[in-house]
Amino acid sequence: MKTSVSSAQIVRIEGRDIRVQPDLVSVEEPLEMRLGYGSEEDRHKKSISITMRTPGHDFELALGFLYTEGIITGAGDLNAIRYCSEPESEEAVDNVVIVELKTEVEVDFKKLERHFYTTSSCGVCGKASIEALQNANCPVIEKKQKVLEASVLHALPEALRAQQAVFQYTGGIHGCAFFDMQGNLLMMREDVGRHNALDKLIGASLASKSLKMTDSVLLLSGRISFELVQKAAMAAVPIIAAVGAPSSLAVKSAEELGITLIGFLRDKRFNIYTHRERIAL
Amino acid sequence: MKTSVSSAQIVRIEGRDIRVQPDLVSVEEPLEMRLGYGSEEDRHKKSISITMRTPGHDFELALGFLYTEGIITGAGDLNAIRYCSEPESEEAVDNVVIVELKTEVEVDFKKLERHFYTTSSCGVCGKASIEALQNANCPVIEKKQKVLEASVLHALPEALRAQQAVFQYTGGIHGCAFFDMQGNLLMMREDVGRHNALDKLIGASLASKSLKMTDSVLLLSGRISFELVQKAAMAAVPIIAAVGAPSSLAVKSAEELGITLIGFLRDKRFNIYTHRERIAL
Repeated sequence: MKTSVSSAQIVRIEGRDIRVQPDLVSVEEPLEMRLGYGSEEDRHKKSISITMRTPGHDFELALGFLYTEGIITGAGDLNAIRYCSEPESEEAVDNVVIVELKTEVEVDFKKLERHFYTTSSCGVCGKASIEALQNANCPVIEKKQKVLEASVLHALPEALRAQQAVFQYTGGIHGCAFFDMQGNLLMMREDVGRHNALDKLIGASLASKSLKMTDSVLLLSGRISFELVQKAAMAAVPIIAAVGAPSSLAVKSAEELGITLIGFLRDKRFNIYTHRERIAL
Repeated sequence: MKTSVSSAQIVRIEGRDIRVQPDLVSVEEPLEMRLGYGSEEDRHKKSISITMRTPGHDFELALGFLYTEGIITGAGDLNAIRYCSEPESEEAVDNVVIVELKTEVEVDFKKLERHFYTTSSCGVCGKASIEALQNANCPVIEKKQKVLEASVLHALPEALRAQQAVFQYTGGIHGCAFFDMQGNLLMMREDVGRHNALDKLIGASLASKSLKMTDSVLLLSGRISFELVQKAAMAAVPIIAAVGAPSSLAVKSAEELGITLIGFLRDKRFNIYTHRERIAL
């Protein structure tokens, strides 16, 4: 069984207090669901979804997904739910769920293909996800030392909130922004979907031409998932700071890709998860 | 241009104060991206993604998405980004973005097909998304009057937090739970992905057999998107309450499907967005 929580070594900053300590992060790992009948080999069953999830209750996740997406009418449609007996690597163990339909239950696989989503992170273990990213034209992040002052970091969330015109009215939207190393807001975008907000921000920066993402700090109003680190990495952003918590895979990928990752940036505190050399304390 | 904020008529409860008033919600609408060359007709261009987004900065969203997913190397790869000139319906206007590549830019469309995601909500307007749901075995929600007391509602978030063992440690995970109409917690699940948390909860409820989702209140620790209403609707859950804000499409779909939708349930207050007849004030 995979765990749902893993540990990370962090630098915790609270006012003038600086501590290096272990901390816990929620695990994020890909889960692939394959659907088919008992008579087929597992590798011939149809892959219908890859989702980034926290390990645990994986069979319930598969059952709930198939039910809420209207593919099955209840648990009675199934013969079995189990992990794949032929995982492609050690890391993929317990990351592939096999759902066996009863012989008489028919599913429109063609409809499934068109309507269901998988994430862009292929591979069914965190390691494969990071490797896929490293192979996908992902630029190398420039190494720099102590470019950002802690006092500048503390001020960023308030600057984002001040710009989030929509947020003030609805409370229902994710914001993200690029700042320069002096804490000046360069560009801000928002969306109900946090990956959309970041895509808008990066798209706007590409279109502006004058904004250098490689010299900027990215601030996120919520939590940091792997997908957001992945997008920032493609834009060669050296520092990501978020008001919320990072996932395990966000931390692991930031570490490997050379990105400084900061979480819980609020109330005059923050945690540095990776590449602390860019922060002047 | 579509707007990014729309208005909703709500019942706002704050302590003993009850007010019917207009409120603003963030707009959530599907956006389809199609990729191709200028020489092809728009309807022959390849649909690569449908995402639920807040309208506005749609061309930047497309540019950022294509760049962060490694499909293009920059804005210079493109001839044009524009809205589809042949929308299939009035509601789909400005919900389909056409990206025209320069003739010399090659894209591996086969790779795209495997790696990129679309949501399960087909159709490129909110109306089509709701209609698709109504046609997809979505059960009719039972009508009931005044079954839930406001005082019971106020107590739910604290009961969820008490159960969220992982949340206490990492602060980085979404929780959701079913309660009965007396406020007793029946089942709780968590995940880094909020749709996964709800799939796990519904899957666990299906497996338990004793939990009647049609008599339960669903509590969500975050915001309410269309996708979450969609999943709850498939399980015929009559009341959804969330600590965060709902999107425009969450409100619209709950209204049409007969679900009571409650948002901003915190600090002794909440807003009722739809079907207030189930709440005793």
